[in-house]
Amino acid sequence: MAYTLEQLNAAPTPEAARMLSGLYEHSDWISEQALAQRPFRSLTHLKHAMTQVLEHAGRDAQLALIRAHPELAGKAMVSQSLTAESTNEQTKAGLTDCTPAEFARIQKLNADYNAKFGWPFILAVRGPRGVGLNKAQIIDAFERRLHGHPEFELLECLRNIHRIAEIRLNDKFGVEPSLGHAVWDWQEKLAQHSDPGYAEKGQLTVTYLTDAHRACAQRISHWMKDCGFDQVDIDAVGNVVGRFHPAGGADSARYLLTGSHYDTVRNGGKYDGRLGIFVPMACVRELHRAGQRLPFGIEVVGFAEEEGQRYKATFLGSGALIGDFKPEWLEQKDADGVTMRQAMQHAGLCVDDIAAIRRDPARYLGFVEVHIEQGPVLNELNLPLGVVTSINGSVRYLCEVIGTASHAGTTPMDRRRDAACAVAELALYMERRAASDGDSVATIGQWQVPHGSINVVPGRCAFSLDLRAPTDGQRDALERDVLAELEAICQRRGVRCTREETMRAAAAPSHRAWQGRWERALDHLGVPLYRLPSGAGHDAMKLHEVMPQAMLFVRGENAGISHNPLESTTSDDMQLAVDAFTHVLQQQESETP
Amino acid sequence: MAYTLEQLNAAPTPEAARMLSGLYEHSDWISEQALAQRPFRSLTHLKHAMTQVLEHAGRDAQLALIRAHPELAGKAMVSQSLTAESTNEQTKAGLTDCTPAEFARIQKLNADYNAKFGWPFILAVRGPRGVGLNKAQIIDAFERRLHGHPEFELLECLRNIHRIAEIRLNDKFGVEPSLGHAVWDWQEKLAQHSDPGYAEKGQLTVTYLTDAHRACAQRISHWMKDCGFDQVDIDAVGNVVGRFHPAGGADSARYLLTGSHYDTVRNGGKYDGRLGIFVPMACVRELHRAGQRLPFGIEVVGFAEEEGQRYKATFLGSGALIGDFKPEWLEQKDADGVTMRQAMQHAGLCVDDIAAIRRDPARYLGFVEVHIEQGPVLNELNLPLGVVTSINGSVRYLCEVIGTASHAGTTPMDRRRDAACAVAELALYMERRAASDGDSVATIGQWQVPHGSINVVPGRCAFSLDLRAPTDGQRDALERDVLAELEAICQRRGVRCTREETMRAAAAPSHRAWQGRWERALDHLGVPLYRLPSGAGHDAMKLHEVMPQAMLFVRGENAGISHNPLESTTSDDMQLAVDAFTHVLQQQESETP
Repeated sequence: MAYTLEQLNAAPTPEAARMLSGLYEHSDWISEQALAQRPFRSLTHLKHAMTQVLEHAGRDAQLALIRAHPELAGKAMVSQSLTAESTNEQTKAGLTDCTPAEFARIQKLNADYNAKFGWPFILAVRGPRGVGLNKAQIIDAFERRLHGHPEFELLECLRNIHRIAEIRLNDKFGVEPSLGHAVWDWQEKLAQHSDPGYAEKGQLTVTYLTDAHRACAQRISHWMKDCGFDQVDIDAVGNVVGRFHPAGGADSARYLLTGSHYDTVRNGGKYDGRLGIFVPMACVRELHRAGQRLPFGIEVVGFAEEEGQRYKATFLGSGALIGDFKPEWLEQKDADGVTMRQAMQHAGLCVDDIAAIRRDPARYLGFVEVHIEQGPVLNELNLPLGVVTSINGSVRYLCEVIGTASHAGTTPMDRRRDAACAVAELALYMERRAASDGDSVATIGQWQVPHGSINVVPGRCAFSLDLRAPTDGQRDALERDVLAELEAICQRRGVRCTREETMRAAAAPSHRAWQGRWERALDHLGVPLYRLPSGAGHDAMKLHEVMPQAMLFVRGENAGISHNPLESTTSDDMQLAVDAFTHVLQQQESETP
Repeated sequence: MAYTLEQLNAAPTPEAARMLSGLYEHSDWISEQALAQRPFRSLTHLKHAMTQVLEHAGRDAQLALIRAHPELAGKAMVSQSLTAESTNEQTKAGLTDCTPAEFARIQKLNADYNAKFGWPFILAVRGPRGVGLNKAQIIDAFERRLHGHPEFELLECLRNIHRIAEIRLNDKFGVEPSLGHAVWDWQEKLAQHSDPGYAEKGQLTVTYLTDAHRACAQRISHWMKDCGFDQVDIDAVGNVVGRFHPAGGADSARYLLTGSHYDTVRNGGKYDGRLGIFVPMACVRELHRAGQRLPFGIEVVGFAEEEGQRYKATFLGSGALIGDFKPEWLEQKDADGVTMRQAMQHAGLCVDDIAAIRRDPARYLGFVEVHIEQGPVLNELNLPLGVVTSINGSVRYLCEVIGTASHAGTTPMDRRRDAACAVAELALYMERRAASDGDSVATIGQWQVPHGSINVVPGRCAFSLDLRAPTDGQRDALERDVLAELEAICQRRGVRCTREETMRAAAAPSHRAWQGRWERALDHLGVPLYRLPSGAGHDAMKLHEVMPQAMLFVRGENAGISHNPLESTTSDDMQLAVDAFTHVLQQQESETP
């Protein structure tokens, strides 16, 4: 018999404490202290209250909680001090069925981990979908995290403990994030399609108009039809477009535009882009199942191209919707010499129709996009969702400092023109300068002394600049200061610098009303409101040029890593994204005449 | 009729001024002011006095001097404002015989140079040997220097002006640096031998026991015989050994050991190593011609291997003389799979005799070595010679900082673990720390973010450390501080670092008495005394382990560049080295019973 939130809120404290007992290993004090914050508006609210209790309990209490956990064990250890819950979870993860070699490997990892950090390795072995990680995944995570920094690893253990508690709480309250599971499963299935050369290695790579890419489009379009979209098409550039008509019929009202991209980077993650297609798809499926129509239409677009991998035509899919498809792109060649025009013909797309897919903004309420954060912020803050304030404006340069190569032994320190040290000075300035804005970022991602020798003072240093800020003005000021400092450093050090601007993108601040709708949705769900800029570019940047837009971010696991197979998020967080999107649709319904 | 130094010292000032008139283009004030320092002990003394006048005259006077020079001209311009001297010099350099294309090129270079720096390009077109540069050399120098930093280029123009004055002064005083020319010419001839693959490109590369290397040994041994050495041999490792017996006969007294290496790095310079063979060779030739014997013997060794290019057996030649030839080296393979043993057999060297070439230190007075500086110090100070205080001790590491790669757009500045920024912080610390010692050097020569992307915060940064100081204690303190700072930076930034020590060499401080002999020689020649450590390793480091040693450095042109075809020094400076060596021999003579 599962509990209900109403029972928890109404129960006397000892009784409520008993209801929550066992969420945290031998540490019921966490849920007990959290009860002071009753009544809870949602289980999400309760979960966040528990993370807050632990965060404020201090490091000793946190370490004690971690040490209260048993070692992750092979079958020979199952009979030891594990709680019933732990045994249950480790069984689900298949860890009771280790070979002797696997068992020895896990024991060695346990010993190394304990020796390095001084506490046991904690992993939520039921994983992001709740069905259990397999042994290889567990051992991979173990090996990876063994290399982590102790401060990070401590917090990562706590995050895994909270995830374990979340799953246990779901069990206690009979909660199944079924819409989150649906979204998770769609992504998993779509990830079965991958380009040749990557598929064989189990890597996910889907670039514009490859066989895998076209298979993805087919899959998405079929699923859209299954969900009850009234109209599903693959358009002239390969976007998959599903329309769910308004209550009054196909053209009786304006549409809310939403969606994201289904192409990926090479060896990328399963959620980047795709999450933003499947979350609204789940919403439409539920509306359809409930036989409900809204006073406005919903148009979900799976954008064919955003990452610019096969061709240098980033944001091709969303660009085409605003009339920003550049005809010269058609003559670009991929690595095999295939032009984009040939690729489109091969895929049966009609180049002549591209101009016609440009949307009339007057027919849309705006554009919203759900996206995995691709950054560490929400993960660190133990928050499942965040509201985007702006997509950062950015500018990029490729630069080279030219000093004088000279003998590292014979050139006194005061007679050097060290190109790399000039870049070093700039890097540290950029750190300080960007940090002083609070929400600007500045990065030297490429950094190389070409043909550097151990005994030669660097005569050249090639490097890149990537500068981003929530508004164009803030970005411009950052850029001005960084370039001025580079100039001053070169002057002072007697070196010179070349630079080439390779990219400049305007900031896309969120539309106030649409951002407000996301914020009200989070409030309704009991998710503490957190606003953050988007450092990465998104399709919403393109739509921003013609209509109001606002984005919702979903927490990424593994420190928010993205463009990487480790990219991950849980079906619980996806469920919250579906719930938030649904709430936005309902708000919009009540506001639209 | 040439002047003499005695005449100059004795003449009334106006007369003396007339004697020096025309050394500096339209700028007799320089030599006139220098006359205040009469009497001069040597022309070298006078030359240095003139450089000092100009150095203290300030920037405006220096610029005015530079601007007093005509543009380097093609034949169409010869009739213009050139002084007779300038015309003469440019004629010697063959610039009066330009093709229209060459003339146009030179005019363009002149215009670009003037536009960039605001003064005309100055080049001592008669070159380091005084016989004139060819057109290709002149145009190459022009193009190279066009890329220089203005502050460096200003000083480089002044250095060229002093070189022009030096040649004019030689002409006025009928001085011919004939021993310097002999040394220069030996080096030029030896440089005709180069390894296959390099010879074709006009590059100099002579690695252990190649055909070119063996030809060099033959050449050196013949020249030694021509010079009057009593005994010349190529020993078991390929060293060329010439012995000039003492007055009492072959074994009547101890020997002074000297020499340097004749192998080169790939695409190296003509003077590195070889200068230290030919300078004492010239001294012996003069002793032999004069029928003079010293109370001690002179043993000049052309070491077969110092650079460690074909095999990783650096200092093989000098090492063998101190019993430090490692038998396992014989099994090392070169890039073509040829073992050192095979190479030695192929060259007719007898491996079994290697142990026998170990020297008995009791039979030697010590080891002295002349070497091109391979650094910028003497060149910047307008000094032809410098006395080495110590060969620096050194230690090298290959390191990698491991942080966390993350999205450059989405990772806030305060949540990064940027591996490259950690190295940046270390680099700037190393600059300050080494500079605070005055004569320590610390270098990060290799520096790379592997597979860095413009939009990814560096997760890894591979780099090298090269730390050197004149004493082992000073080096150890430097190393301790740098590694402690690296540790502290990693701690503070939440990154980690791996490191591997790849080399450690002890410092070799000069022997007080032998260093003193070099110093007295400089004093005798009127060369201002300048002491400096050697940042590079030399054969003297090896001999240091068994006997007293002291080195003399000769100025390198082109900012002292070495291991590079631009390595250069003048026959005037080489003459001074021969003179200094001769003076050391004479001192030694008077000291030896």
